[in-house]
Amino acid sequence: MPRGEHEHIDWIRGRVPRDPRVLVGIGDDTAVLSPQPLPLLATTDMLLEGVHFDLSRCTPRQVGRKAMNVNLSDIAAMAGQPTAALVAVGLPSGADTLAEELFEGLHDAALGFGVALVGGDTNRSCSGLVVCVTLLGVPTGAGPVLRSGAQPGDAICVTGQLGYSLAGWHLDFVPRLPEAQRLHARYRLHSMIDLSDGLGSDLFHIVGESRCGAVLQADAIPIRPVSQGESPDGTGARSPLEHALHDGEDFELLFTLEENEAQRLVGEQPLAEFGATVSRIGRITAEAGVWIEQSGRCSPLARGGFVHQW
Amino acid sequence: MPRGEHEHIDWIRGRVPRDPRVLVGIGDDTAVLSPQPLPLLATTDMLLEGVHFDLSRCTPRQVGRKAMNVNLSDIAAMAGQPTAALVAVGLPSGADTLAEELFEGLHDAALGFGVALVGGDTNRSCSGLVVCVTLLGVPTGAGPVLRSGAQPGDAICVTGQLGYSLAGWHLDFVPRLPEAQRLHARYRLHSMIDLSDGLGSDLFHIVGESRCGAVLQADAIPIRPVSQGESPDGTGARSPLEHALHDGEDFELLFTLEENEAQRLVGEQPLAEFGATVSRIGRITAEAGVWIEQSGRCSPLARGGFVHQW
Repeated sequence: MPRGEHEHIDWIRGRVPRDPRVLVGIGDDTAVLSPQPLPLLATTDMLLEGVHFDLSRCTPRQVGRKAMNVNLSDIAAMAGQPTAALVAVGLPSGADTLAEELFEGLHDAALGFGVALVGGDTNRSCSGLVVCVTLLGVPTGAGPVLRSGAQPGDAICVTGQLGYSLAGWHLDFVPRLPEAQRLHARYRLHSMIDLSDGLGSDLFHIVGESRCGAVLQADAIPIRPVSQGESPDGTGARSPLEHALHDGEDFELLFTLEENEAQRLVGEQPLAEFGATVSRIGRITAEAGVWIEQSGRCSPLARGGFVHQW
Repeated sequence: MPRGEHEHIDWIRGRVPRDPRVLVGIGDDTAVLSPQPLPLLATTDMLLEGVHFDLSRCTPRQVGRKAMNVNLSDIAAMAGQPTAALVAVGLPSGADTLAEELFEGLHDAALGFGVALVGGDTNRSCSGLVVCVTLLGVPTGAGPVLRSGAQPGDAICVTGQLGYSLAGWHLDFVPRLPEAQRLHARYRLHSMIDLSDGLGSDLFHIVGESRCGAVLQADAIPIRPVSQGESPDGTGARSPLEHALHDGEDFELLFTLEENEAQRLVGEQPLAEFGATVSRIGRITAEAGVWIEQSGRCSPLARGGFVHQW
């Protein structure tokens, strides 16, 4: 049984830069953050060994980065600016090196976006590594972009390319934070989400919360180019379009805006300097339901899910 | 491998009361909280099956309550007022009833102190139940009480009774939130902490962060009365004083204040209506080190730790 585990709390705290603009002080296991007159954004995500990652196929540093990045992507989805993170971990016994590398990954990802690690909780785990990050942030510009603002007639757009994330992208993606803020600053976004479960699942959140429907154009969906050998299921049994719809963990931005705004955006390609294209892939409809147009035929799209395949 | 696990995110969200004074809206996996001109308190704690609890010895409801209560106790330690919680869980497969009961416990504990559950993340776990709560709050009165404010000459006081928490108290304690706020409102507290690791460990946080020392009076330490049969180690090998110093998970408040304030406080017993006494158990010294006076002898107190014993 662990002895003095509560004392490990300082494991992270001792290493975090204390940004006085964010962090006022440390109390009893509790950070004191500066007053902030804006609304507060707050999100949490837990990664578990054996479910979200396999330490025989990735490094602890990659796990740390991913644990922070999935939360950063949630703040990006609202065009927010992240400010501070709290990290709780469950560490297998004797995992000092693992812990160090995990922290380096968490720290790298946070520092890259100016996020202060302000608190944490370190525990022993009997059963594999567990990392839970809670991320705080503030809205930018006209306020947070929600899932619920899509309007019939809106164009549906997506950043980057979709599918085949298990070939490496799911560990090494960089959250689209500056991209989201630029889109929010230059265009009137109606709704936005980040693609964690996959286009064929997350689009249902937008139409569900906006009480509308959608039609996707299959040929317009940007698919990540992956050589057959890299295809994670090895079999090639699923089409590239199915991978783009259902693989999940793309962590790209899916958003809607008025058709004329979308035309302007696609023409301007405002994310080119980030190495990302924006594609118009469909439209929002007043009628419920999600459809996909391919070769002149329109079929209902069943709500898919995210399938971990290793 | 799990399918659609990201969709479980709504598991908690669908059940939480949305308090419009706290929660402005829901974005992409992210809560939007009302602007708050006060500093923000933020704390996180993770409980893991097999380390912090054993489901053969407690109910999922007790685990849920404890997961929320340990965080509430951290906010209490600063005399803060909790406002909103985020909950991330890893659930074993087929644990629908467990999940329901766990949530009821989380909800009960949160509701009891007016805390809104504003977000969460639900995952499948391959390896037992994991619960991670992040709690936000605001200071009360003159601001947060920190660990670092103890002054030489201060009296050291503690609420309630210490030791033998494994006989049941560690699962069923109620965090000392209104008690802490009352103490902060009526007396000039210099420093405070909640006893999670035990007096013989947590006092070292106060003296370390306040750069001072302490002398405890053994006879003044209030010890929880437990019949021999209830003693969790069964052997009676450790003295009641050792239990009070080192069992941990008392979740009582340990605080310091000027001697004359402490005399007034102990005379007034302001927590009587909560069923709690306040005891003066020692004094802060300018010299580093922690000592304990017993039967006229003064011995150094080694820093102890929290030992899970089941």
